[in-house]
Amino acid sequence: MKAASLAALGENGLLDLLTGRWKTDRSRILTGVGDDCAVLRGDGKNHFLLFKTDAVVEDVHFTRKTTPALIGRKALARALSDIAAMGGRPVAAVITIGVPPDESVSRLRAIYTGLQTVAEKYGVNLVGGETTRARQLFLNVALLGECRDYRPVLRSGARGGDFLFVTGRLGATRARHHLVFEPRLTEGEWLARHKFASAMMDLSDGLGADLPRLARASGVGFEIDSKAIPRARGASLDAAVNDGEDYELLFTVPLSHVKTLKKKWPFAVPLHCMGVVRPRGKDSARPLFAYGFDHFQQRRGHAGLR
Amino acid sequence: MKAASLAALGENGLLDLLTGRWKTDRSRILTGVGDDCAVLRGDGKNHFLLFKTDAVVEDVHFTRKTTPALIGRKALARALSDIAAMGGRPVAAVITIGVPPDESVSRLRAIYTGLQTVAEKYGVNLVGGETTRARQLFLNVALLGECRDYRPVLRSGARGGDFLFVTGRLGATRARHHLVFEPRLTEGEWLARHKFASAMMDLSDGLGADLPRLARASGVGFEIDSKAIPRARGASLDAAVNDGEDYELLFTVPLSHVKTLKKKWPFAVPLHCMGVVRPRGKDSARPLFAYGFDHFQQRRGHAGLR
Repeated sequence: MKAASLAALGENGLLDLLTGRWKTDRSRILTGVGDDCAVLRGDGKNHFLLFKTDAVVEDVHFTRKTTPALIGRKALARALSDIAAMGGRPVAAVITIGVPPDESVSRLRAIYTGLQTVAEKYGVNLVGGETTRARQLFLNVALLGECRDYRPVLRSGARGGDFLFVTGRLGATRARHHLVFEPRLTEGEWLARHKFASAMMDLSDGLGADLPRLARASGVGFEIDSKAIPRARGASLDAAVNDGEDYELLFTVPLSHVKTLKKKWPFAVPLHCMGVVRPRGKDSARPLFAYGFDHFQQRRGHAGLR
Repeated sequence: MKAASLAALGENGLLDLLTGRWKTDRSRILTGVGDDCAVLRGDGKNHFLLFKTDAVVEDVHFTRKTTPALIGRKALARALSDIAAMGGRPVAAVITIGVPPDESVSRLRAIYTGLQTVAEKYGVNLVGGETTRARQLFLNVALLGECRDYRPVLRSGARGGDFLFVTGRLGATRARHHLVFEPRLTEGEWLARHKFASAMMDLSDGLGADLPRLARASGVGFEIDSKAIPRARGASLDAAVNDGEDYELLFTVPLSHVKTLKKKWPFAVPLHCMGVVRPRGKDSARPLFAYGFDHFQQRRGHAGLR
């Protein structure tokens, strides 16, 4: 095979290349690579374990100037957002930290204080920590969650005729949004438990990059009304579609459930319908948006941070 | 609090400082930070989940010259050794890779081939992958394991009068041992399932650094016969005690089980008794060995690699 560069492959291409030959025991693993979390069958018909890994790296996801507690906060909240995207509850996390030899101990303590604050808020047991030397500070969070007595919502469940919804508003213009967002755990669990969502994911790379992933996983297309995309105050349509790091939930709802959902939605965070799901047809393979954030192509992002 | 440097704290001190205030839900979490893996109660009395995170970093755990497949191999095998140390079986792993923008795609593919080979050999489902940019290549492995129908072996179960055993031989002088070792999964599971081991851990930082951890966790002391420490061919006593990266199992056995253990041990890897456990007394607080490997103090290690 001809050697490709990382920039040419992009993140999706690299992941496909690295993980494309992975095989899993289907009696144990409901879904592996390609969803927000891996899903393992637990004990009994309606118990599922969710498993997620995610890292934040200095000068990529935060800088020397970022408030240290918010670094820890972000590291855990990102993984929590992925648990939310399946409709799960977090259970326990283990943390790896890579530390340059000259790093300040008080900064590390402040990072861990931020981590612990989020963990306590969302009921996550912090159960393991490893340290290693590294030239660049990084934090890896591995998170275990679960769905007990109901099924997780996968990316692959959208069907033609479903409606496309999103929580909150996109393109948040507060520079700190990517550090202080709230993972939509309560909303996600409610949507899964009451079987409103047929497919769901969280918006981390922006609607423009993430919606095509949902479409691909479900084998469907989408028709979006760009005027119906809920924008944060002051956000342009471009920002709402492409900036990323919204950490809102994107989900599809069967037509038969739409009215009840709108009526029963019990949360302060707003709910918006943006469009409909189309069965894969001659037009639906066409990407709806030009781009979104990609780590290796670096097309977008808050000052290059992700 | 007076600011301390990383070198003054060392790895143990830093971990204590960062994780010392973590609290866990005791109804759900059997043991958190401080053992080889975290242990979560599963469903039913005799089902336990094991949860572990671990990273390998370029120029710390491997170099540019390391055969790429062995980098992936090592990353997963280290975490497997921690599952072995509880007597568990591996279930699923999720991988985070931090990648410099100029990294070669073919090297990454070879690393993942090594990872996959180990995963297939030991029945690990690879279920999640994340990529991020980083200046230095790193791989984080988060691993989920389990003990079904028996209890995991903790570090804290050693009692005065128990005998201290180790699998294999220490101080392996093959330069590649740290890349090609076999995690002692079968041996660990057998020891746990048949209740031979009262306490167990794997030797990653060397007997000199790891045995005091077992002693502290169990609240006991040890009396070792240095002549009884099984050395790899050509290894000095100093190397056997301090080099680390043996990835053998260190465990204690109640006197009543010693004879049966020796008689029934069904494995090719040798078994050696090195000493006895002493109840904590006036002498037992004294460290038995001067040192072992520490990431931040960098006292030892194969050419600085860990």
